Amino acid sequence: MRHERISILGLGAMGRALAGALLEAGREVTVWNRTPAKADDLVARGAREASSVEEAIEAGDLTVACLLDDASVREALAPATHNLDGRTLVNLTSGSVRQARELAGWLEKDGARFLAGGIMAVPPTIGTEGAFILYSGARDLFDRVAPVLGPLGRPLWAGEDPGFAALYDMAALSGMYGMSAGADHAVALVHAEGGDVETFKREVLQPWMEQMLAITVPGADVSESVPDEYNPAMQATGLETLLSASQEAGVPADQAGHLRASLWRMRRAIAAG
Amino acid sequence: MRHERISILGLGAMGRALAGALLEAGREVTVWNRTPAKADDLVARGAREASSVEEAIEAGDLTVACLLDDASVREALAPATHNLDGRTLVNLTSGSVRQARELAGWLEKDGARFLAGGIMAVPPTIGTEGAFILYSGARDLFDRVAPVLGPLGRPLWAGEDPGFAALYDMAALSGMYGMSAGADHAVALVHAEGGDVETFKREVLQPWMEQMLAITVPGADVSESVPDEYNPAMQATGLETLLSASQEAGVPADQAGHLRASLWRMRRAIAAG
Repeated sequence: MRHERISILGLGAMGRALAGALLEAGREVTVWNRTPAKADDLVARGAREASSVEEAIEAGDLTVACLLDDASVREALAPATHNLDGRTLVNLTSGSVRQARELAGWLEKDGARFLAGGIMAVPPTIGTEGAFILYSGARDLFDRVAPVLGPLGRPLWAGEDPGFAALYDMAALSGMYGMSAGADHAVALVHAEGGDVETFKREVLQPWMEQMLAITVPGADVSESVPDEYNPAMQATGLETLLSASQEAGVPADQAGHLRASLWRMRRAIAAG
Repeated sequence: MRHERISILGLGAMGRALAGALLEAGREVTVWNRTPAKADDLVARGAREASSVEEAIEAGDLTVACLLDDASVREALAPATHNLDGRTLVNLTSGSVRQARELAGWLEKDGARFLAGGIMAVPPTIGTEGAFILYSGARDLFDRVAPVLGPLGRPLWAGEDPGFAALYDMAALSGMYGMSAGADHAVALVHAEGGDVETFKREVLQPWMEQMLAITVPGADVSESVPDEYNPAMQATGLETLLSASQEAGVPADQAGHLRASLWRMRRAIAAG
C-alpha cells in the first residue's frame, strides 16, 4: 500500500515541495502543471510528467491537487469528470469550509472517493518533523491514504465532514495571526520607547510567550466567562493602560487590534458576571 | 550576600507569593501590609511582621515593594522618606515606564539605591522554573540584588533606564494578549462551525502555535516590510477571506481584532513596496 503511485496536480511552491518529499521517500510520482516547464527538476529527480490532467489521474492510484484556489481545482478537473469513477482524490488546495463541502459532493457524485486536506506547514517545512497535514472525509479512506502521504507530514484526521480540514486549518491560521500581531506590537512598543529590540525578543518575549502558550491554548474557550484565576475587571484596566501606553509611545492604533479584541472579551466576561 | 535580610511591602496575592518563596529558600523575611491580618500564615512560616513601613525598611538590607499601583507605593513610602538614605529598594509593583522613571528620580534624590522590576510570572508560578523577573537600574546594584532575589524567579537585567523593566513587561504582556486573542478566536470559529473544539485545541492548535512561535518572535520587526517568504498581497487576501469566514460563521467582529491588526500590517507592507 505504501507503494501506490501518486499524481500531483499543480507545481507551485507547495506542489513542488509535496512532489519532492514523495520522490525523496521513494514513491512513484507523476506530476502535472498548467505550465509544463515547472516540472523539469522534478523529472530529473525521477518524476514522470503528464501532459494532461486526465493522463495524470490515470497514472496515479491516488491524485493530490495543490492548486491556486478552488476555482483552479474545478477548472483542472472539469475535462476529467467522465473519468473519476473509482478514483481517489485528495485536495490540498487552500479553500473555505463551504468550498470543501461542495467539492466533496461534486466528486462523490462522479463516483470518486475524496479527502479534503489542509497543510499545516510552509513549503520548506514539508516532510520535516513539525509538519502535519489535516484530512477530512471518510475514516476508511483516511486510513488508506495516511501511510501513502505520510512523507509530506504527520497525517491527522479532522473528521467525516469534508469541511473540517479547512475549518481547522483556517482557525489555526487565525491563532497564528494573533501571536504574530502580539509579537509585532510588542516589538513596536519596545522600539518606540528606545528599548533594545533584539535583547527583548530573545531574553524576554520568546521565553515568556513559550511559557504562556502552554496555558493559553488549553484555557481558550467559547463561554462568556474567563478562567477563575483571571480577574476580568483588573485585566480590563490593565488592557486600557496598555492601550494608552501604546498610543503615548506613538505606535499606530491599528497595530493594537489584538488588545482591543482582548478588552472586548474581558468586558463581555464582566457583563456576564 | 545571599543571606541579606529582605523586607516585603504589600501582601496581595503576589506579595504573599514573593514572601513565601523567600521563606522557602531560607531567607530572613520581614513583611508589612496595610491590613495586618494578611501576614498571619507567613508569620507562622517564620516571617517577622513590621507594624510600619519605616520599621520594615529598617529591618531589611533590601526592601521589595509589591503594592496595588504606583500611587500605593508613593503613599506607603511617604512617611519613610527621611529614612531612605543608603537604603536599597526594589519596586516590583506593576506600573508604567514613566512612573518607574519618576520613582527612580524621587528615591535617588532621597539617597536610596533603586531597581525597578517587572514580574514575568503569576503568583502560583513564583519560584518555579519558568518564572523570571526583570530589573532595570544600575548594573552593579542588579549584580548585588540578583542572587538575593533569585528564589523568586530567574533575574534578568533590562538595562540602566529604570523604565525598561516596565517597558519589557508591558510589551511582553501585549505579545501574550495577541496569542490569547488568536487562540480564543480560533476556538470560537471551530465552535461556530460545529467542529470538535477539544480535539482541535489539542491536536491542531497547540502543536501548530508551538511550531509557529519558534519563527514568529525572531521574525517580528519594526520595519515597513515583512519577511521575504511572506507574499503580503497573498497574505492580505488570505486575511480578508478569514475575516469573511469568521463573519459568516457568526463570530463577533470585535473578537477578530488581531486579524485586522495583521491585515493592517500586510497593507502597510504592500504600500511600502
